[in-house]
Amino acid sequence: MILDKSLKEALFTCSILVQKKMSDLLILEESQDSHLLEAMRYSALSEGKRLRPFLLITCANLFGAPTISSLNAAAAIEFVHTYSLIHDDLPAMDNDDFRRGNLTSHKKFDEATAILAGDALLTYAFEILSSAKTHEDPLIRCELIKILSRSSGFRGMVSGQMIDIENKNKKITKEKIANIHRLKTGELFMASCEMGAVIGKASNEDKKHLKYFAHDLGLLFQIKDDILDYKGIKRGKTDIDEITKPKNSDNISIVHTIGIEAANQQIELLCDQSKTHLKYFGHKARILNELIDYVSLRSS
Amino acid sequence: MILDKSLKEALFTCSILVQKKMSDLLILEESQDSHLLEAMRYSALSEGKRLRPFLLITCANLFGAPTISSLNAAAAIEFVHTYSLIHDDLPAMDNDDFRRGNLTSHKKFDEATAILAGDALLTYAFEILSSAKTHEDPLIRCELIKILSRSSGFRGMVSGQMIDIENKNKKITKEKIANIHRLKTGELFMASCEMGAVIGKASNEDKKHLKYFAHDLGLLFQIKDDILDYKGIKRGKTDIDEITKPKNSDNISIVHTIGIEAANQQIELLCDQSKTHLKYFGHKARILNELIDYVSLRSS
Repeated sequence: MILDKSLKEALFTCSILVQKKMSDLLILEESQDSHLLEAMRYSALSEGKRLRPFLLITCANLFGAPTISSLNAAAAIEFVHTYSLIHDDLPAMDNDDFRRGNLTSHKKFDEATAILAGDALLTYAFEILSSAKTHEDPLIRCELIKILSRSSGFRGMVSGQMIDIENKNKKITKEKIANIHRLKTGELFMASCEMGAVIGKASNEDKKHLKYFAHDLGLLFQIKDDILDYKGIKRGKTDIDEITKPKNSDNISIVHTIGIEAANQQIELLCDQSKTHLKYFGHKARILNELIDYVSLRSS
Repeated sequence: MILDKSLKEALFTCSILVQKKMSDLLILEESQDSHLLEAMRYSALSEGKRLRPFLLITCANLFGAPTISSLNAAAAIEFVHTYSLIHDDLPAMDNDDFRRGNLTSHKKFDEATAILAGDALLTYAFEILSSAKTHEDPLIRCELIKILSRSSGFRGMVSGQMIDIENKNKKITKEKIANIHRLKTGELFMASCEMGAVIGKASNEDKKHLKYFAHDLGLLFQIKDDILDYKGIKRGKTDIDEITKPKNSDNISIVHTIGIEAANQQIELLCDQSKTHLKYFGHKARILNELIDYVSLRSS
């Protein structure tokens, strides 16, 4: 169980297991296009925190479901996350050349390949979830598909991307930013926890508390992201000359709206609030509590 | 039952029912982005033959499943088809300004909106299929999701788009073109029939014959498309001055490889062949037989 390890160990174990699972799922079959698969592997298997798989696996653990039983679902949600990054980086969207120090998909390959690799990863996530290898009970498989599709679709993540783009270079309220954050990041965080809870056959009451926790953790994560972006620490920038001017100043950022001090206060508030939701689970939720501190203190 | 009508009547009824279902499924909810939904509706509800929904519904009918029981699945496959057209038309892909006389999504809106509308329609298809409203049996829902995701993903349609782009402006064999056609069009035709068969709880033997039929119909459809494209009839071009030079001469086309005469012979051959596969179903398959002639004789 991931649950019994230290956070550092748990994150490491989880990322190794998910990496192996994703790699195994992305193997070349006959009559398949190797170029497309190469692009899918390039983005999906590149370095990442694997926070969504970690949340999913840990929440399943919380209700007694062993790690191995949630690896397929964990890979599926990471594929959806990867697709969203590939499409988000496209010239017509955020137009980013690098992601975590590596070339973005359209820079490494080309735009057409990046669009199709994203499409393919998204589609594959649902193929994986529909398979009996993911869970023996088809009703649970349908539940997982419903949660993931709803949270990542036009009422969730994609809607967040759209509103984000529509409001670029506009002055918007902090409430509107919070809504964009909830849609772009929170929805998939909530889906990760809910999918884990479904695999662990948790009660509705359990799910409710996890949902609140995941909602706050998502906001926390995104505000921290904005702060790191503001400080120029993200995207491999650490040189002091480069951090004087915020990178991506055209991006929606809570820091630009409420200032760095208020953003840091928000972080503290959300830390407390998300921990409150976990009290319901008692000591079992230790690792999730530690995760809150990890997310708020991270430096990359 | 669609099955008992004349082909013309059946196609008409089917397109009305599917249009209504798609429209009902794309209704604005609270906290949703209206711009994104507008783009989704613009492409999904624009004029179309609705061949894939027709195949799905007719095949379900063939095994006794009423039309109403397969409308959700029919809408889902049309959403996937629509998403593929939106992304295919993008500047980085085929770079088309018009589709069936209307502006393409990225021309009507912008590239970011088109990418996201495609993503959202693809994701929504799986949400619909996971719902108990689509079918009461979760095992059947999982089957439908598996068929649609596999046929439209990196082993199916998306792979076809990739190989198509990779081979643009290259001289390739007719076998390679047939493979691209099978992946780009045939896979979704086969999926339509198989999904209908699953809803109708058809036997494996039934499914096998339908698969062969759909495979040949897909090829037939695509060769006819190439012929119409070659003649300049597609995309609203009918003026004799405009049809002297083939439109989209950089596109993969069977006509450019084997010539117009051989392409017409292929059409005849595939007509006969696909009708042979339907003999197994006897008189019940009348409307599918008529569909073969309709596809091979169509002028748009």
